[in-house]
Amino acid sequence: MSAYDDMMAFQRETEALGEVMGRLGWDQETMMPESAAEQRAEEMAALDGVLHGRRTDGRIGDWLAEAKGHDAASQRQIALIRKSYERTQRVPADLSAALARTTSLAHRVWANARAENDFAAFAPKLREVIDLTREKASALADGGDLYDALLEDYEPGATGAEIEAMFTALRPRLVALRERVLGSDRSIPKLDQEFGEDGQLKISSELALAFGYDLSHGRIDKAVHPFSSGSGLDVRITTRTEANNISNCFYSTIHEVGHACYEQNINRDYLLTPLGGGVSMGVHESQSRIYENQLGRSRAFTGWLFKRMQAEFGDFGIADADAFYGAINRCAPGYIRTEADEVHYNLHVLLRFDLERDLIAGRLDVADLPEAWNARFAHDFGIEVDQPSNGVLQDVHWSEALFGYFPTYTLGNVYAGCLNQAMRAAVPDLDDALAEGDTRPATAWLAENVQQFGGLYEPRDLIERATGKAPSEVPLLEYLEAKFGAIYGV
Amino acid sequence: MSAYDDMMAFQRETEALGEVMGRLGWDQETMMPESAAEQRAEEMAALDGVLHGRRTDGRIGDWLAEAKGHDAASQRQIALIRKSYERTQRVPADLSAALARTTSLAHRVWANARAENDFAAFAPKLREVIDLTREKASALADGGDLYDALLEDYEPGATGAEIEAMFTALRPRLVALRERVLGSDRSIPKLDQEFGEDGQLKISSELALAFGYDLSHGRIDKAVHPFSSGSGLDVRITTRTEANNISNCFYSTIHEVGHACYEQNINRDYLLTPLGGGVSMGVHESQSRIYENQLGRSRAFTGWLFKRMQAEFGDFGIADADAFYGAINRCAPGYIRTEADEVHYNLHVLLRFDLERDLIAGRLDVADLPEAWNARFAHDFGIEVDQPSNGVLQDVHWSEALFGYFPTYTLGNVYAGCLNQAMRAAVPDLDDALAEGDTRPATAWLAENVQQFGGLYEPRDLIERATGKAPSEVPLLEYLEAKFGAIYGV
Repeated sequence: MSAYDDMMAFQRETEALGEVMGRLGWDQETMMPESAAEQRAEEMAALDGVLHGRRTDGRIGDWLAEAKGHDAASQRQIALIRKSYERTQRVPADLSAALARTTSLAHRVWANARAENDFAAFAPKLREVIDLTREKASALADGGDLYDALLEDYEPGATGAEIEAMFTALRPRLVALRERVLGSDRSIPKLDQEFGEDGQLKISSELALAFGYDLSHGRIDKAVHPFSSGSGLDVRITTRTEANNISNCFYSTIHEVGHACYEQNINRDYLLTPLGGGVSMGVHESQSRIYENQLGRSRAFTGWLFKRMQAEFGDFGIADADAFYGAINRCAPGYIRTEADEVHYNLHVLLRFDLERDLIAGRLDVADLPEAWNARFAHDFGIEVDQPSNGVLQDVHWSEALFGYFPTYTLGNVYAGCLNQAMRAAVPDLDDALAEGDTRPATAWLAENVQQFGGLYEPRDLIERATGKAPSEVPLLEYLEAKFGAIYGV
Repeated sequence: MSAYDDMMAFQRETEALGEVMGRLGWDQETMMPESAAEQRAEEMAALDGVLHGRRTDGRIGDWLAEAKGHDAASQRQIALIRKSYERTQRVPADLSAALARTTSLAHRVWANARAENDFAAFAPKLREVIDLTREKASALADGGDLYDALLEDYEPGATGAEIEAMFTALRPRLVALRERVLGSDRSIPKLDQEFGEDGQLKISSELALAFGYDLSHGRIDKAVHPFSSGSGLDVRITTRTEANNISNCFYSTIHEVGHACYEQNINRDYLLTPLGGGVSMGVHESQSRIYENQLGRSRAFTGWLFKRMQAEFGDFGIADADAFYGAINRCAPGYIRTEADEVHYNLHVLLRFDLERDLIAGRLDVADLPEAWNARFAHDFGIEVDQPSNGVLQDVHWSEALFGYFPTYTLGNVYAGCLNQAMRAAVPDLDDALAEGDTRPATAWLAENVQQFGGLYEPRDLIERATGKAPSEVPLLEYLEAKFGAIYGV
């Protein structure tokens, strides 16, 4: 066996153990008995210890010194293992342990603070998390930019400056679009009728299959917060139902199917290797968002869905397919990111990106964070935050030290905009198929041009290969302005 | 930290990882997508490698040299870790690996041979398994008896000679009872009416709760072969339904609840330690069998169950509670161990014990095994085996090298007989409670006298402490003769 083969055999086991960890997380959210949490924490901590030991195993350094790739894929495998190993080596073990301990506590403190609407109760713990995160970023950055060093975990190759440029171009046009849409005097119906859970789940499962989800390598369960979990041959999704919000169920399902299909459609030669998963959070989100929005909320597909719902439920108080399309895409101002429509969503993300970059750079103190949040929100959304749980306390991310994660949500939308433009140029009859509930021309294009490659190319390269152009915010803006301009007549 | 504390911290992680392995097994039988098996095999192999590495970790030897117990429980923890470590050390790694490889192949060969009813197709692989098992037994026995060395994995402290003495006393009285029962001219009704799955599962869940299963630390799912899985705070069971065999569902559930309650009721101080699981297969089976048979199939409890079924299903063609009691306990000759009634069951086990002991001792060649099986079966059961799948090929155990496992089934019944006698002497109103569907007086006695101790005492000591007498086959025989003598009027 060569050093490369030895290293890959070791890596394959590590990836398999990583899949086991993912399955424990899935089980915890879907199947675990209510009083098993304490034992589960010990199980996950033990497995995490094993994974950490393997990821920092000195043999990897020896193998890397010898290993030679024989083609593009094996060279990329080596590069990814090297990057991961070097990053792990740079963070002192006691700092890693301190971060794990502190975020575990901070998560609980945050949850209580949110429930109590009391930012001051969270502030000291958040400051500790930020201090440790800055320390980690310093260790990783090796003299470079701290925020860029953190970004690398979520969106390899991206920089804060480049994202800032993109987001700076997005923001004024999104704010302007939001104002036009909310100022429209068109009346768009609401989709808040009550539907039974059985009917919701039945159509939800049909939607999953319609978008190409492979149930022989996955399964669908209910969970409080929908998610996708696992890669390779076992990729599971969850969904949820709300009696008077059927679109929550349907579009949660389609969103998670987008994530899951990305994992399911990766070249099987890459199974249980660093190339065997989605290449970045941004590209992952591009798949979930293009499935959910550019395809699932399109006029063509919602036309089919309207007929399907009528067949299942009879007349449900929406006059016709155009009204249904409006209802599905109805815009409303709101405090909460996860409930936002396509027009508002990215404004939520842009706000968080700017604030967290300032926090990590040391330009913003935790004590000033609520005021900064509220001022920015009032400017971009035109409404005042009424309480911290609707503002700075709403998201879990910062309590878990996930700095650098937020921008990938909007990067995903930007990539989805680019891919949608290229896909529609390449597949001219796309809407005809969608109008029949057939997503295959679209999903086959995405599988062929994005999903199959797994981690083979860097995120920006992947998008450029698929679209023929460097990623840009312009297609997303044009898509949003055209779509919502038409719906709202503005 | 003392050597003892260090060792226990390490052990606790190993036990936690063992629980993770168990959960993967549970998932595989209940939740796993149909085409995920290949990846799951890699996940389990990777985790198995981790567990093997930890169980043979040289630090355990160092800790054992230093560790001192401060009470009976800690001394027992040390003794159990020492025994496990020394046994693991005695088996060469390449022999372990060869056994794992060979049994993995043998399992598939056996499954095909059974499907094809072709013992000759299995014989060469079985011979390989036996040769490797004898080699392993030699390494473990260190000059002692080979079969005893294997038994130690399933029933610590038991010897083949002692089990042989017990089984030799059982066999003629069981054969005689079987003949009297089958010769009876009483007509016992069959319980082969069809019942819907929803009703079966509804009562099945009520039975689980009635026998004390704690759903906040467990869950019930369907599986092809019912089993119990996990220990401590997360102990899951499965059941199954057959349209025209409702007692299969009910008594599978009660049986697995017996296993699960044993694990759930162990002293929580022992969580994730060697004392935190059932002490042996025999004691485990004693709990599942006493729940299932001495309690669940008693006249008193079946009287309550009869009323419950009438309330659910109306008249289902069984005249009264006495007839229902007969139907639940109906005896019939049959080839298959897992389908056997209480009278026949142990005869199936005794046959396997004698044959596998001869195989391991080298007194019986694989080529002569089918003839030996068939001759013994004809003698004890009074019918000729018609095909290998109804005879020597019916069980999975030997293909998996589980030599020494079979006798624990009957040891469990023997222990259940002893415990039942002591429990009924200690709890005089037991049947009054059972007649109301209330198992608490019985299950509380078992929790108090058996289950709470986990691995604290050796199996025989545990039974002797609970009953005040050394284990003996006599109470089981007296129970069976009295019960079936009354039902069949013989």
